[in-house]
Amino acid sequence: MAAGVSAPPRAVVEHLVRQAVYQRLGKPLPRIAQAPNPLVVNISARHCHLTQEAVEALFGKGYQLRVLRWLYQEGQFAAQETVTLIGPRSRVISNLRILGPCRSLNQVELAYTDAIALGFDVPLRLSGDIKGTPGCMLMGPAGFYELKEGVIRAARHVHMHPDDAAFYGVRNGDYMRLKVGGDCGVVFEKVLVRVDPAFRLEVHLDTDEGNACNLQPHTPCELVKA
Amino acid sequence: MAAGVSAPPRAVVEHLVRQAVYQRLGKPLPRIAQAPNPLVVNISARHCHLTQEAVEALFGKGYQLRVLRWLYQEGQFAAQETVTLIGPRSRVISNLRILGPCRSLNQVELAYTDAIALGFDVPLRLSGDIKGTPGCMLMGPAGFYELKEGVIRAARHVHMHPDDAAFYGVRNGDYMRLKVGGDCGVVFEKVLVRVDPAFRLEVHLDTDEGNACNLQPHTPCELVKA
Repeated sequence: MAAGVSAPPRAVVEHLVRQAVYQRLGKPLPRIAQAPNPLVVNISARHCHLTQEAVEALFGKGYQLRVLRWLYQEGQFAAQETVTLIGPRSRVISNLRILGPCRSLNQVELAYTDAIALGFDVPLRLSGDIKGTPGCMLMGPAGFYELKEGVIRAARHVHMHPDDAAFYGVRNGDYMRLKVGGDCGVVFEKVLVRVDPAFRLEVHLDTDEGNACNLQPHTPCELVKA
Repeated sequence: MAAGVSAPPRAVVEHLVRQAVYQRLGKPLPRIAQAPNPLVVNISARHCHLTQEAVEALFGKGYQLRVLRWLYQEGQFAAQETVTLIGPRSRVISNLRILGPCRSLNQVELAYTDAIALGFDVPLRLSGDIKGTPGCMLMGPAGFYELKEGVIRAARHVHMHPDDAAFYGVRNGDYMRLKVGGDCGVVFEKVLVRVDPAFRLEVHLDTDEGNACNLQPHTPCELVKA
């Protein structure tokens, strides 16, 4: 399977159109169109990040993850490879997607609905902060790999470039709110700000959060300082 | 199995304790303790409401639902009986709980996460408003029963007595907001107000909504006028 080339997110297209229209009309840009970057809100379904060692245990010696689809953050991808997760009550989730490239630690990110179905009691954690979290067994075509810890519900967060942080008036580690409109609108509190020059402006929600507000590509979203 | 006797919800106990403590201290009651009734927020997992005709088709002629557990709304109960739901892609959910007593129409209430897993595209509807919604097949020990329509995601709502409506300054059909605190706090917009002298003050969320904010018995919740 060839690596997919994704169309730009609708928010990116809308941002460009909005800026062009106001410019054409000779009118001053509204606040939202002045933002250096469009606000992209994406739902992360359950997935895992693995070390190269874990990938080789699961898929064979020297195995390299292959790109299924590039993600919005530069260099990140959904891999073609998936694994089977075996939870504490021997319940399983098959086709747990691996996100690449490989990292220095193993981490499984589940929504609470997934965790409850599997029988896990997983804590809310920032990505990478896995000390003391539950482990699990993963199964791949070449073998099993046991995670001693690393199963979490990822805390909601927003990736942003320093330009975005300046525009919104926030700093790394601050919290913001994400207002989501529509028929079952929701305001998400405690959206953690993560600033890095390599980041593109993007909020990550999990499937519970995305489904609670029926987030669709056309759903209006607004990021506001908490 | 005998009908379960549920302990009062934590919100009910807290409300009584709060009122007693302020009275004992001889201090004026804060606004929240002046409310005629405690605010109970419950998560409704996927379930169905059935007609007696459907119950008989699924469980046998003359069959009567048996009480597993009384719900917070007077006279409503989770039945001991469950059915298997067969969705459009032949995917199934087993152990779909029936809520009693029987009604005049058949309705299946799913969270979007359930609907996506089953392959349904279900609309957001108020309970009872099922015209044009998708149907499904149900299977019980005595046979199958086809719903021509009735599969919905129930719109979030709050049941209240006229005394509660007066306290909050709202009327039947108004919308309110539910603020949920905690580490992954959320404000739910568009909580529909349903007023009836038979109702007890209770917000119903689905599992996506409850899991998005990790709603627990001790999570602080506040209902505010939109």
